[in-house]
Amino acid sequence: MTEVHAARRERLRDRCAANGTAAALVTRPANIRYLTGCAPPGAALLVGPGTQDALVHRRPPPDERGEGRPPEDLRSLVIGSPEGDTAVAAADLAVELRADSLAVEEHHLTVARHRAIGTAVSALPLSDLRSAVEQLRLVKDEHEIAALRIAAEIADQALGELLESILVGRTERHLALELERRLVDHGAEGAAFPTSVGTGPHSGTARHVPTDRRVEEGDFLTVRLGAVYRGYRCEVGRTFVIGTAPADWQIELYDLVFNAQRAGREALAPGVACRDVDRATRQPLLAAGHSEGVAPWSGHGVGLEIDEDPQLSPAAMGKLDACVPVTVEPGVHLPGRGGVRIDDTLVVRPVADGGPELLTITTKELLAL
Amino acid sequence: MTEVHAARRERLRDRCAANGTAAALVTRPANIRYLTGCAPPGAALLVGPGTQDALVHRRPPPDERGEGRPPEDLRSLVIGSPEGDTAVAAADLAVELRADSLAVEEHHLTVARHRAIGTAVSALPLSDLRSAVEQLRLVKDEHEIAALRIAAEIADQALGELLESILVGRTERHLALELERRLVDHGAEGAAFPTSVGTGPHSGTARHVPTDRRVEEGDFLTVRLGAVYRGYRCEVGRTFVIGTAPADWQIELYDLVFNAQRAGREALAPGVACRDVDRATRQPLLAAGHSEGVAPWSGHGVGLEIDEDPQLSPAAMGKLDACVPVTVEPGVHLPGRGGVRIDDTLVVRPVADGGPELLTITTKELLAL
Repeated sequence: MTEVHAARRERLRDRCAANGTAAALVTRPANIRYLTGCAPPGAALLVGPGTQDALVHRRPPPDERGEGRPPEDLRSLVIGSPEGDTAVAAADLAVELRADSLAVEEHHLTVARHRAIGTAVSALPLSDLRSAVEQLRLVKDEHEIAALRIAAEIADQALGELLESILVGRTERHLALELERRLVDHGAEGAAFPTSVGTGPHSGTARHVPTDRRVEEGDFLTVRLGAVYRGYRCEVGRTFVIGTAPADWQIELYDLVFNAQRAGREALAPGVACRDVDRATRQPLLAAGHSEGVAPWSGHGVGLEIDEDPQLSPAAMGKLDACVPVTVEPGVHLPGRGGVRIDDTLVVRPVADGGPELLTITTKELLAL
Repeated sequence: MTEVHAARRERLRDRCAANGTAAALVTRPANIRYLTGCAPPGAALLVGPGTQDALVHRRPPPDERGEGRPPEDLRSLVIGSPEGDTAVAAADLAVELRADSLAVEEHHLTVARHRAIGTAVSALPLSDLRSAVEQLRLVKDEHEIAALRIAAEIADQALGELLESILVGRTERHLALELERRLVDHGAEGAAFPTSVGTGPHSGTARHVPTDRRVEEGDFLTVRLGAVYRGYRCEVGRTFVIGTAPADWQIELYDLVFNAQRAGREALAPGVACRDVDRATRQPLLAAGHSEGVAPWSGHGVGLEIDEDPQLSPAAMGKLDACVPVTVEPGVHLPGRGGVRIDDTLVVRPVADGGPELLTITTKELLAL
């Protein structure tokens, strides 16, 4: 893997050279992890000048050496005091290495921290790296997609086991905790995001915070969870009906969201505008008269973070590329009654390769549990 | 509670007036929660000009209305699009309300976001609010301390139950998950921070990430957990010995850390310099020849965040006040062998009130489990 990370830093180096900056200071943790394979808390990564890269981090507690050890081929600088700023130290190093300019992540650095860097290295002109690393992260390589596949498999397993257990009478909180335990049982590093379990009036929404409400006969039950594997995060969401037979309004609403989600999945292809995928997903819901209860986005990229570019929303710019993993997650929530949400993680693939690759394979039939 | 939050905003208003700024733009979530009692994701709070406060947030998913509803007495502005920036909208509002200056949190706003605000309201001079709200948060009122007491009680309960169960053969991961489940069972909103369980060579450190290592006879077992109650976070950490009788080196090391931790607790009093509390805690460990395995801090404040001011470290400035809750958490880790860590949350009180109030009351005897 060391070579993979070195190659990624090389690509960033090329970008910087193209923009006329000698070196880049990376502070966003997911970006550091992408470029080094590790991200000790509060670390800062200097890429360049030349090939003189260095990771600056605090003295890691001994226990974190396993998680946080920088790759052998990368210079490692350790700051002892909790007050020292790793980004300032990295900028000092850039001066020491005779860099004549430094690009920093202005979308991640706070104003105060940026000022501290500027004061420390007043002679070194600072520019904006912008989201150069995020752009490199957009298209995933096969190592990354392999990790996402396993993350999705783990989430599917945890969800599948839950469906085999008795649900009526249990609280949203406990179902969410059990799912998170099962994720870890199956080898996840943890939950990709706070597991959401919503029953009855809480069903059908994206980010419901589990409460002590108990699952009841006739409820819709919406579950949304994800696993982290080797740092990569996936997402799966399903809605079920509790009891023997769903009511007509439940079947109707479910079919509507199911068709919207399928339309979104089928719209995924290299070269397609992100907003067109959002429109394909949103249109059926709006056509059926649902506007209030529909979230302002239809999906988003996933990877080292659970919410990455591209965004699938009405105002989103840009087109999809091959090997970009995204979620397609429409939902409708009827205040007081609940609703339906269906959420998959897929990898955009050209038709020649069989079209979008579905990573989360839990059934999307309306199951009555 | 509404009055409490209004009174806090009033105190912030006074600070701004004293600094000659008409209005303040608060973006740090914990600060918004302190001033309003709620913190919808990505919200921004405008305090002033005059008494015209407003909370700007995205259209909350219906499910989050419970968590995220702003107090009745506070104007609420909702942004529909996921692209819109709440801080920019709040700054626009400040102009609309004829504010002639705006103080922003430069330690929280990114450079990019600060620029977006400056561009949107170019006529409105921006200044730095600095950590004015964090300073208000330092000294807790009785409502806050009551919430911390309950959070500590919950953590003690979860830990106590774990000690009654069989530990040998179970993995660090599963013990950590069980503790987090118990926290929720006892009414916590969640874990105050990732629960840390370290056995054998992993014991004695602050932030060990639980692994699949199983608890063995003769191990030290270090557990560190905390509960969130009404948004307030506490912390408790203990080290135990697994099996019948601890080894001599374990007893010796435990007594050393125990005495260091007691020295730190006894040093807590209004007017005492934070660095003096650190020295009192650190000195016994250094005197015994432990320097490498000792963390660079001895404790820190807790509240709406698990790591707040004051910091108890060698370079810390400032003195303790009454009604400031802090942790005292010395530890020693011997590479390859493990170590001891003891962690309490206490509230600084004057001697007249009986001295420091211990919130986490789990025994600190060396238990052999």
